[in-house]
Order: sequence, then C-alpha cells, then structure tokens
Amino acid sequence: MDSPVEDELLRANLGFYDAIGAGDIETMDALWANTAPVACVHPGWPALHGRHEVMSSWRSILLGPAPPKILCVSPHASALGDVGYVVCREQLDDQTLVATNLFVREQNLWLIAHHHAGPLADWNVSEPQSTLVN
Amino acid sequence: MDSPVEDELLRANLGFYDAIGAGDIETMDALWANTAPVACVHPGWPALHGRHEVMSSWRSILLGPAPPKILCVSPHASALGDVGYVVCREQLDDQTLVATNLFVREQNLWLIAHHHAGPLADWNVSEPQSTLVN
Repeated sequence: MDSPVEDELLRANLGFYDAIGAGDIETMDALWANTAPVACVHPGWPALHGRHEVMSSWRSILLGPAPPKILCVSPHASALGDVGYVVCREQLDDQTLVATNLFVREQNLWLIAHHHAGPLADWNVSEPQSTLVN
Repeated sequence: MDSPVEDELLRANLGFYDAIGAGDIETMDALWANTAPVACVHPGWPALHGRHEVMSSWRSILLGPAPPKILCVSPHASALGDVGYVVCREQLDDQTLVATNLFVREQNLWLIAHHHAGPLADWNVSEPQSTLVN
C-alpha cells in the first residue's frame, strides 16, 4: 500500500498527465518547480534545461496541431524526503513510452523538477534482452 | 561554474560510467543506494524496481558477452538538497542515448537511486520535432 507521501506524488503525477491530455499550458506551467533547477527529456529529444527551454517545448507540444492523447499506466511512486519520483508507462495512440517524473516539494506542493520519457521496446519475450544495454 | 555539490554529483556520475565501462559489477553494486527505493529503466526496457531486480539487470549487462563501451558526454548536474540528478548523453559504439541519473546522499556518499536511459533521435534539423511528443 502506498504511503501518504507516495499518494501525494501519484496525485501530482496524475495532474501532469491531465494537463497534457487537456492541452492546458497554463496548468502545465504551474506544475513545474519555480526554485529547483528543472530539465526535460522528451522522447528522442536532446535534454532541455531551465524553465524557459522546458516550457517552450511544452508550448510547442500542447499548443501544436496534434497535442498528444496520453494515458498514464502503472505509476510507481518513491519518496526521498522532500523529493520524490514516479516511474510510469505513457500510452499514446501509436506507442508506449516509459517515463520518469521527478518531483520536489516547494511551498507544500509537489512540483515537477524533471521529466524524462523514452520508448518501450516491443518485447516478444518475458525477459529484457541483454542486447538493449545501457 | 558548478557548485561543490554539483561537482560531487558529477564525480558520482562519472563513477557510474567508469563501473559500466570496466564491467565492474561489485563497484556497480556499491554505487546504488541501500536505503532509498531504487529503480532503473534501461533503453527500451520496462521499468525495474528494487535492488534485486536492478542489480540482476546490471549483472546480465556487465557480465554478459558484450559489456557496453560507453562514454558519458555533456553531463549536467542539479542539486535538490540531499538529492541530485545528472542528465547526460551516453555515447555507445552505434548509438547515442540520453540518460537521467538520480542520486541520493546516504552516509555522506552520493549513491544512485534511479537510472533512466533512452535513445536520442538522429536530428537533421536544429529544432526538436513536434511529432516526437511526450
């Protein structure tokens, strides 16, 4: 069973995906940390650093011609004091991604400090393949 | 210029890649957190949770027939109190990855709580493509 802090992290994580699904750039902006250093790795993209770069990317995604329809699946929250992270799958129309969302507590809110999403391979076996190494 | 804490994070991050490059599973084991909840997302793999799953994956990678030759490029460290994260590129023989490494301070050591790596797309233009959305 998740602890209260993990529940808080899961709720914050859900808010993030709700904002993506709604194409709501104002809410998205409010969900990101203001004091902590922020970064973002969209699938296949180079890393973005700082609020300006990160929010510009979300504006181009959420306000673009095809804002993503996205579903967060199997989120797993871990608390590290005033920092926490959630690992989940992101189900899009045509692909499944794995995402890490890093949260930091600022003024009693869990805000996003870092997001990293990348593709999940199409596994035909039950065990990960050692050819896909890190 | 990086702060002393960011320098510490960059050194811990370097140690992680040194252990991969050396195929040193004992050092790798020592680099991961003992108290904090740990997780790992290898490129294309589903998320692994807990020390047992995570270290099993590293054993299969580092002790396998072709342990990766890997170079950490352009690491960027961010400190969040007793937690920190490093975003960097991983240059392998045949591909470039983007990685997030999450560290937590335990007994005055920066240990890894989470690693997430995924492919960097082959950009032909200077701006990220909005088709590769999150």
